[in-house]
Amino acid sequence: MMSKIENNRLESFRQAREQGNQKVLDADHLGIKRFFNLDTNTYKDGALPGKTKELLGLVASAVLRCNDCIDYHLEQCAGAGYTRDEMVDALNVALVVGGSIVIPHMRHAMETIDLLEQEGSLES
Amino acid sequence: MMSKIENNRLESFRQAREQGNQKVLDADHLGIKRFFNLDTNTYKDGALPGKTKELLGLVASAVLRCNDCIDYHLEQCAGAGYTRDEMVDALNVALVVGGSIVIPHMRHAMETIDLLEQEGSLES
Amino acid sequence: MMSKIENNRLESFRQAREQGNQKVLDADHLGIKRFFNLDTNTYKDGALPGKTKELLGLVASAVLRCNDCIDYHLEQCAGAGYTRDEMVDALNVALVVGGSIVIPHMRHAMETIDLLEQEGSLES
Amino acid sequence: MMSKIENNRLESFRQAREQGNQKVLDADHLGIKRFFNLDTNTYKDGALPGKTKELLGLVASAVLRCNDCIDYHLEQCAGAGYTRDEMVDALNVALVVGGSIVIPHMRHAMETIDLLEQEGSLES
Amino acid sequence: MMSKIENNRLESFRQAREQGNQKVLDADHLGIKRFFNLDTNTYKDGALPGKTKELLGLVASAVLRCNDCIDYHLEQCAGAGYTRDEMVDALNVALVVGGSIVIPHMRHAMETIDLLEQEGSLES
Amino acid sequence: MMSKIENNRLESFRQAREQGNQKVLDADHLGIKRFFNLDTNTYKDGALPGKTKELLGLVASAVLRCNDCIDYHLEQCAGAGYTRDEMVDALNVALVVGGSIVIPHMRHAMETIDLLEQEGSLES
Repeated sequence: MMSKIENNRLESFRQAREQGNQKVLDADHLGIKRFFNLDTNTYKDGALPGKTKELLGLVASAVLRCNDCIDYHLEQCAGAGYTRDEMVDALNVALVVGGSIVIPHMRHAMETIDLLEQEGSLES
Repeated sequence: MMSKIENNRLESFRQAREQGNQKVLDADHLGIKRFFNLDTNTYKDGALPGKTKELLGLVASAVLRCNDCIDYHLEQCAGAGYTRDEMVDALNVALVVGGSIVIPHMRHAMETIDLLEQEGSLES
Repeated sequence: MMSKIENNRLESFRQAREQGNQKVLDADHLGIKRFFNLDTNTYKDGALPGKTKELLGLVASAVLRCNDCIDYHLEQCAGAGYTRDEMVDALNVALVVGGSIVIPHMRHAMETIDLLEQEGSLES
Repeated sequence: MMSKIENNRLESFRQAREQGNQKVLDADHLGIKRFFNLDTNTYKDGALPGKTKELLGLVASAVLRCNDCIDYHLEQCAGAGYTRDEMVDALNVALVVGGSIVIPHMRHAMETIDLLEQEGSLES
Repeated sequence: MMSKIENNRLESFRQAREQGNQKVLDADHLGIKRFFNLDTNTYKDGALPGKTKELLGLVASAVLRCNDCIDYHLEQCAGAGYTRDEMVDALNVALVVGGSIVIPHMRHAMETIDLLEQEGSLES
Repeated sequence: MMSKIENNRLESFRQAREQGNQKVLDADHLGIKRFFNLDTNTYKDGALPGKTKELLGLVASAVLRCNDCIDYHLEQCAGAGYTRDEMVDALNVALVVGGSIVIPHMRHAMETIDLLEQEGSLES
């Protein structure tokens, strides 16, 4: 069982991410603002459903080995309705493409999936 | 319009890839053989459909910036029934996640998609 | 001395790059178009002069090890008025930050600088 | 407003970096010592002013996604006299070249710039 | 001299790594299990002695800049009988190939080597 | 059987590499010259034998996915007396650490090993 303190890891990340993004936008750089806007629009429905693109974002984050990006996309994937097994199957693609150097990020991702489930954000 | 010589690019890649893979397997290293087998199985139906995982493989290849891997996964995606617009939408995720350093690979990928269409491998 | 055929390397790259970018834009994906537009605007005068940002683009391309991006940014740097020695000094930063794995790209860059000089694109 | 504890983040980094570098040098490996010496000399005035090269180091660190390197080069850039807006404009180049995977490092960098300003290390 | 708390860093890593790997395996994904098995077998005696391959794993981890992987492979290298000076000499190869961006990982690695020595895991 | 033209691939690489390195050194940048010197010295006998470090250089090149670096280090490994099976075993470590994205470089490496054997540079 996961303790309260561990559960805080996801909540702390959300707050830090939101505050950090705000700080970045407060720098008031037009190019950065446009990039953030472009980034948000990338995952909206297009030729591919937004749901599919969330999974693409997760795998891209995993092979590029960025835990914050993995956490963000796991949240988005959970919100889009993916099950634990589907996320794990996507992460396996990242593991095979990216190799054993991805393993520490697999450990991190699995813990995040557990935290998402504990707080009721994950479909079962 | 694309010339015969350019069309050969895809065919040459297929032959070189097949011969090269055979050479790798001929080295007769058990670990390498198992890795190749694992790699093949990764894209079979699981919690996620194999078709979805082909797209994950494409985006992973694009953000990691490997043209041969992009070509291989574009072929697989075409075979799995993705349209040109769906592949382009997936590549856009790779572009936004991976940045302008991915642009030369976007150029390469678009040419490959054209070649796949010319030879009739692409759904329309 | 560099032969005509070698000199063609830079000219061929320019044509292939232009045609490839056109193909990417012809895919008519709004996100991709916006990214290309954003990319172009990045190197315009802002808090930093555009000239300085061209050099930043060169070093970013070199540590990320993309020859096409290096060639493009060397052209831009030459156009912005950097001398050979200044470009070499920038590439040295990339070499030290990125390590010996950057050396093949140093070789490529030096040849491109020679080609730029031969065609009169480089300040002396 | 930033708390004392958060402000300690930069001070802790400086101490850990200094102690860590000392530990590396204490290993008494001639190649490593020479590399450290070479690294220091890279950012001295040459064909390009040292100040320009500090900015190149920052962007290289950002596209290669190393927070410790970003912090170090932000300090150096602040010391060299760059303003907040100039650093942000340089980081925007890194964001566009490196893509959304750089965003978590943008958040980190913006916080570091705030800390540098709070302690009076930043020109205004 | 290193404090008890610092010494805990290595012990905490071992526990977190073990628990995390267990969590990954508990996801019960055949592909992931096979990858973990393949990974373990990679470092067994083959055409090259397992001991040599541990050093290859260390350098691969260092140039790919993954502290958890570096710590794991340093432990394995210590267990395989490498001395401090041999590990440092291997890390120097990683530094030269990978560049100054590897330096923060050199600092981390040197601290880990100290911790391994303190707990008596290192040959002298 | 490999044709004369294919065998030329290795010879052409050697010439291009030598000429390119000369061009880089002709730029007469002290930092670059020192880096090249440092690079050469890295693979000399130290706490580890030079022979072992050649293998480390090969694996570092393979996980960082640089064909020119792989070719150079395969030559060095052949010259240092490694057998085909030993090089393949080292490349397998790179494959597992770096993942399937390394496969195109495995194909390239296997062809280079064949070329080295054909010209009698490989121990049997």
